[in-house]
Amino acid sequence: MNPLCTQIHYLLSPKSVVIVGASADYSKFTGRTVKYVLRHRYPGKLYAVNPTRTEISGIPCFPSVKDLPEAVDTAFIQIAAKGVPGVIEQCIEKNVKSIIIHSAGLGESGEEGKKTQERIKAQIREAGIRVVGPNCAGIVNMTESMILSPIACYEIDDLPAGRIGLISQSGGLTGAYVSRAADRGIGFSYVISTGNEMDLGVSEFAHYLLRDEHTDAIAIFLEALRDVNLFREVAVEAMNRRKPIVVLKVGRTEVGARAAASHTGALTGADTIYDAFFRQYGIVRVETLEDLFEVPALFCKAKPPKGRNVGIITTTGGGATIVLEAAAQAGLQFPPPSDSAIREATAFLPSFAAKSNPMDVTMSGAGGGFKKGLELLMKDDTFDMIVGVVGTSSQFEPHLGVQPIVEVCKDATKPLVAFCNPNAADALRLFEKNGIPSFRTPESCGRALGYLVKYGEALDGFNRGKGQQRTADPDSPNAAKALNILVTSGQILTEYDSKRVLSTYGIAVTREKMTGDVEQAKQAAKEIGYPVVMKVMSADIPHKSEAGVIKLGVPSESELVAAYGELLAKAKRFKADVRIDGVLIQEMAAKGVELIIGMKRDASFGPVIMFGLGGIFVEVFKDVAFRVPPISLSDAREMIGEIKGEKLLNGYRGMEKMDCEAIASTLMSVAGLSLDLGEEIRELDINPLIVYPQGKGIRVVDALICR
Amino acid sequence: MNPLCTQIHYLLSPKSVVIVGASADYSKFTGRTVKYVLRHRYPGKLYAVNPTRTEISGIPCFPSVKDLPEAVDTAFIQIAAKGVPGVIEQCIEKNVKSIIIHSAGLGESGEEGKKTQERIKAQIREAGIRVVGPNCAGIVNMTESMILSPIACYEIDDLPAGRIGLISQSGGLTGAYVSRAADRGIGFSYVISTGNEMDLGVSEFAHYLLRDEHTDAIAIFLEALRDVNLFREVAVEAMNRRKPIVVLKVGRTEVGARAAASHTGALTGADTIYDAFFRQYGIVRVETLEDLFEVPALFCKAKPPKGRNVGIITTTGGGATIVLEAAAQAGLQFPPPSDSAIREATAFLPSFAAKSNPMDVTMSGAGGGFKKGLELLMKDDTFDMIVGVVGTSSQFEPHLGVQPIVEVCKDATKPLVAFCNPNAADALRLFEKNGIPSFRTPESCGRALGYLVKYGEALDGFNRGKGQQRTADPDSPNAAKALNILVTSGQILTEYDSKRVLSTYGIAVTREKMTGDVEQAKQAAKEIGYPVVMKVMSADIPHKSEAGVIKLGVPSESELVAAYGELLAKAKRFKADVRIDGVLIQEMAAKGVELIIGMKRDASFGPVIMFGLGGIFVEVFKDVAFRVPPISLSDAREMIGEIKGEKLLNGYRGMEKMDCEAIASTLMSVAGLSLDLGEEIRELDINPLIVYPQGKGIRVVDALICR
Repeated sequence: MNPLCTQIHYLLSPKSVVIVGASADYSKFTGRTVKYVLRHRYPGKLYAVNPTRTEISGIPCFPSVKDLPEAVDTAFIQIAAKGVPGVIEQCIEKNVKSIIIHSAGLGESGEEGKKTQERIKAQIREAGIRVVGPNCAGIVNMTESMILSPIACYEIDDLPAGRIGLISQSGGLTGAYVSRAADRGIGFSYVISTGNEMDLGVSEFAHYLLRDEHTDAIAIFLEALRDVNLFREVAVEAMNRRKPIVVLKVGRTEVGARAAASHTGALTGADTIYDAFFRQYGIVRVETLEDLFEVPALFCKAKPPKGRNVGIITTTGGGATIVLEAAAQAGLQFPPPSDSAIREATAFLPSFAAKSNPMDVTMSGAGGGFKKGLELLMKDDTFDMIVGVVGTSSQFEPHLGVQPIVEVCKDATKPLVAFCNPNAADALRLFEKNGIPSFRTPESCGRALGYLVKYGEALDGFNRGKGQQRTADPDSPNAAKALNILVTSGQILTEYDSKRVLSTYGIAVTREKMTGDVEQAKQAAKEIGYPVVMKVMSADIPHKSEAGVIKLGVPSESELVAAYGELLAKAKRFKADVRIDGVLIQEMAAKGVELIIGMKRDASFGPVIMFGLGGIFVEVFKDVAFRVPPISLSDAREMIGEIKGEKLLNGYRGMEKMDCEAIASTLMSVAGLSLDLGEEIRELDINPLIVYPQGKGIRVVDALICR
Repeated sequence: MNPLCTQIHYLLSPKSVVIVGASADYSKFTGRTVKYVLRHRYPGKLYAVNPTRTEISGIPCFPSVKDLPEAVDTAFIQIAAKGVPGVIEQCIEKNVKSIIIHSAGLGESGEEGKKTQERIKAQIREAGIRVVGPNCAGIVNMTESMILSPIACYEIDDLPAGRIGLISQSGGLTGAYVSRAADRGIGFSYVISTGNEMDLGVSEFAHYLLRDEHTDAIAIFLEALRDVNLFREVAVEAMNRRKPIVVLKVGRTEVGARAAASHTGALTGADTIYDAFFRQYGIVRVETLEDLFEVPALFCKAKPPKGRNVGIITTTGGGATIVLEAAAQAGLQFPPPSDSAIREATAFLPSFAAKSNPMDVTMSGAGGGFKKGLELLMKDDTFDMIVGVVGTSSQFEPHLGVQPIVEVCKDATKPLVAFCNPNAADALRLFEKNGIPSFRTPESCGRALGYLVKYGEALDGFNRGKGQQRTADPDSPNAAKALNILVTSGQILTEYDSKRVLSTYGIAVTREKMTGDVEQAKQAAKEIGYPVVMKVMSADIPHKSEAGVIKLGVPSESELVAAYGELLAKAKRFKADVRIDGVLIQEMAAKGVELIIGMKRDASFGPVIMFGLGGIFVEVFKDVAFRVPPISLSDAREMIGEIKGEKLLNGYRGMEKMDCEAIASTLMSVAGLSLDLGEEIRELDINPLIVYPQGKGIRVVDALICR
């Protein structure tokens, strides 16, 4: 066990526990922790700390932590906030191995709370002890019957243990999850509420659960990732171990809330970054409360199917249609059964039963038709997965409704899931008991299959592209050259300097020359060849078009001479004391398709890159793709494939196909540059980048780097 | 009662019923109908027909319908398909008032079934008797305890009666709805399964329920509308009566399945038309199985709020956040409480409770904080509706969790709904019992409030735009003129003729002249003014660009003369025996924003019009809006506002604002023309239509009409 896992192991599998601030009054929060730990029969050693008692419900009680007869594995602290630092000090002195702080009113509330939390942080850092919380709803280890939580869901006696490890940044929601899942017969291996994440957070617990033998899928309710780098490692390791991570993240509607100056900034809402990050690492992002236990429950029981073809068998048309629609919206397909399957079905189904897909066996279902049909679909190679839609019987004769699916499932060679059409709680629990993924609503059934397929595809993609990620290399010669340019520049680089930085990474820019006077300009234009573009370079003028300091298509030397003076005059009109680096003489780039590539550093994720077609594609349709470097070549290709405007790159209306490989390679270079140069670059905007037909590459026409 | 209602009244409120094909074996479908009608204590007169019995479970039984002692109000037929026509004949002879055909194997199955159904149709048409089915799951009138259905959900004894009238095109789903809603304490006034809709269908029953005093909201599970015109009347009447219609329609994923030649056709998937139609008539289209009873249940209890501002009060942060996210995605807003409300809340809530929105009263909820906070939000004018999120108490002490909301609801001046965070079936039923809309999932809660707001907005819009619809006027002088052009044309009109048709409806087209030879062309060009456009007019060449028979920007007479011959030669190269009407000499339209307006006749809906910006907007982004004429001016304006590309019409990047009123008026004209000319026009494509800055109107540059 690595050191982090060893430390977390004390929290999740303690052999001894002390509840600090335990109460014998079960109507209080502080009494409920005692009530539940006893009710669910924690087998380890239990102590309580309460200065007014010597025993609470049979648990030996001590005046303070330092009076405990042993150094316990974990201390559960539920006293008022201001007393916590004192208890922590005693825990450290007593060599307690880990701490759960349930107490609220710390980092999440006013100034005083924040200060106290900082004090605790300093204490535990120094002592090297790991803490979950404060303001957390506790830790639950179902397989070891260790319930350390005051959440009322633990009133339920017969909570099933399961193989989903739940980590939640909301304490209240753990109650919703445990109670709702229990009603369905779905259980968890652990329920971990992380609270304020002063020390341990989602990433650390996910790191542990990945290596835990009782956990087959990790479910996370997420508000914000505090340690992206550790989480990225976790995500990669999860792919290697083929252990799925399912996340419900709130914050979709914050998209666009953070207004920023550049295109990239305006569109890079934090939630968009999460979306990209999850997609890159095969993390399944679900969209509804209940999907966070239904989807991992499916993942625990079913391997990703080989393809996207679903066969549906049903006794009732309507319900099957809704499952089909939801799954079709998730990208799944519904081919008809093979000819031989249809022939076989015709032999035993009534004439008016539908021998297609969905196969609707109608009332013959009860007479064995459902099971026979199910067997047919199961052996038909057309289908990669099967849905059994169960009608009325699931409500009124659960055993009868469930039985055919249970029997066929024994020899199942592909995923088989069940949806019950009526209100059928008992049948759903029976399915779960028999290890068959089942769904309460047709929509969750269709969606979940879609997630399973996409997870399988992400695994395949990961295995194909593994190790091809371009990671940071700050000591590379390119980086050194780029850094030289950056350190001699101001906060905003001119187009000329920005492009020089791009050039050090092999990104093709327009041929151009910086000139200090008309004579140099004439010489440069001669070398580049007319017509040329003229642009005033000045860190004071980041947006040249608005200041009017650009002249396109200058056809001849005489016009160049005239324009030179005009442009400088305009620059001075824009700002009286403008500092001018010179006038850039630039080739007129040939026409092609205009693109935009942006990069912006996010406080949590570091560099985030954006790709899209420029202009209205970005501004009107927000048709852009994001990724969080490091990225692989297949990530870069996916970015291009993700935007709707891709059609314009792939032979739209008889146009030639554009050089998408050159775009992908540019994206890789931008990602590499952003990683290598780290915080030296705050923002980068290539706009436009022109792409030419296949084999003819790209050209950066304008670029802007901000430090 | 109007004649249709009188006829349907026999079906829905029969004073006497005969079950034809009744069985005493309750394990059979045919026995279940008997079982359920008795179990739920139908108070009217009951008869059975079964040649082998004289009595079934106490119901007097006769050998055939003609032996019945009276002319019953409705006959429920559940015998094998082939025997049905004979029974129908007897029903007609016996003067039975209405018929429910449960029997399957008719129109929905093979050739023989279809023929039998046609035979039945002829029988009933002649007799003027109304029929529901065949292949339907029966009729249920909850308020009169009349259950005529073999669906097993009627095993449930204490089914609540409610004020939602359910009409379903799937029989199986009626069972899902009745059982799932019953579990929540939600009931129906009627449950109507329409089956094959050989005679009566969704529209007819909706017509009835609209006028029914036991029904406050109509819920429809829809596969396809068979009588659009009647349904349109129903929808308008529903708006007048402020009785909401909520529809779950399957078929979203059929979008794009119907490939067609023109743009309009390719995009006008049937489902898109339904979407437009529902939007036009304030019909609420829901997207999930359970929304079809949760949303109407909300509509039965709550009036649409005045605005979009939601206040949330909770004892638990996570669940409230998910409600908020779902509602925000539905377009609702969450302003902070007023300053005075925040001040008041500070007085009684703990320091670490959130006095914002959501207002998180944390553990003070149990001590009265929840109720006090709720009262604060209720009297705060900031909010148009309130959500109470109930935590653990809703599961373990349902009365305590429900009570504060029930009490505050008594004096509620705005919609107040509840969401329970944990698994809390009892609390949900309690809320329902107390008339408080409640939700099982945070997503359904957020969505449903969004629907309520949008319904209110649709009502307002309807009341503002009422009577302004441009309806069909086939006898108008415009129509006569247009018809004159149409009847002398072939199936495909040339651009010239197509534009002449548009001109009769006052739609501005390019100035142009048809010419028969070079001399006429020279003369026309002189009148129009160079440069001109030249186009060969031929019904054989609908797509002129591809054939190369267009010349743009012809600058002078000499070039016109040269081009004349070239164009005719190209036309002949395109098709050797091409029939040429002439060469059109046309003004070069000034630049503006290019639009597209299309019209296509749908088999069910009649003309459907489409609007969008041309080119990639349509082809890459499918950024188009549809409406089903007749439309009002506000419909036309909404179409323009609906597309994302609208930004380009409204002062994009310093451009002038475009003449959107001229576009709206063109849409009205196209809709009017399509209605007036009816089946004379199969398809119409205006592409491009150029719009100019405000006050400068529009110009049709090219158009194509197919008859």
